[in-house]
Amino acid sequence: MLREPDCIFCKLVAAEIPAAVVYENDALIAFLDNGPLADGHLLITPREHFERLSDVPPDTCALLARAMPLLVRAMSEVVSSPGCNVLLNDGKVAGQEVPHVHFHLIPRRENDSLGYRWSAQTYAEGRAASIAMAYQKAIREAID
Amino acid sequence: MLREPDCIFCKLVAAEIPAAVVYENDALIAFLDNGPLADGHLLITPREHFERLSDVPPDTCALLARAMPLLVRAMSEVVSSPGCNVLLNDGKVAGQEVPHVHFHLIPRRENDSLGYRWSAQTYAEGRAASIAMAYQKAIREAID
Repeated sequence: MLREPDCIFCKLVAAEIPAAVVYENDALIAFLDNGPLADGHLLITPREHFERLSDVPPDTCALLARAMPLLVRAMSEVVSSPGCNVLLNDGKVAGQEVPHVHFHLIPRRENDSLGYRWSAQTYAEGRAASIAMAYQKAIREAID
Repeated sequence: MLREPDCIFCKLVAAEIPAAVVYENDALIAFLDNGPLADGHLLITPREHFERLSDVPPDTCALLARAMPLLVRAMSEVVSSPGCNVLLNDGKVAGQEVPHVHFHLIPRRENDSLGYRWSAQTYAEGRAASIAMAYQKAIREAID
């Protein structure tokens, strides 16, 4: 199993530093973010060290998400939140602070001043079709 | 398979309305958000209709995430983005606009003015431990 000696989440997985763990299995641990954006804010991280989402084996990524319905049901029960955001910051430019991939589960309420900065654009004529074709090509080449 | 007659994503899955699909398999389709936050912004949605994350069968949730590493690698190739955010808005209070569960994959760059509104708190003495115990209890009861 990949492990990075100086990684805070690897230490946390190994119980070398304390964490408020709420759920764990062979693939992952889920624990309270100790700098929460809201009461009950959870993190889900693989036991194994991967820095970026693109590094994570598909089956490991699947196992992380497999726990989400269970965790969001527990969240709505424990902190009575009517909604939540699932968020993964992939790369420093995207806000990733700990270089060990992790999903945030952030409880949401009315007027909580959280959320994503939303400023939707529109595609110029033909642009969406050309990007979609480029995606299809990249994905086909990756799968082949 | 669950389907909601008036759901825009159910119609899109059924190809009754057009979409710039970039990838699909038995469980999901991935396509360009046509009101993108950034060039190349993708959505991943299950073929079957589920409104909330808590409604999604764990295996379906796993299949959605299984495609993420492939899609983010394609994204960094197609739009040369150094990072991305994965985001799911679960519930109206969390920003969910289409009531058919979906993950956003949002390309990120330096100074793009996107990202999550971040205002971290700290837990009062004992609060994290008591929430963690409540989570453990709720999860144990859900699993049993």
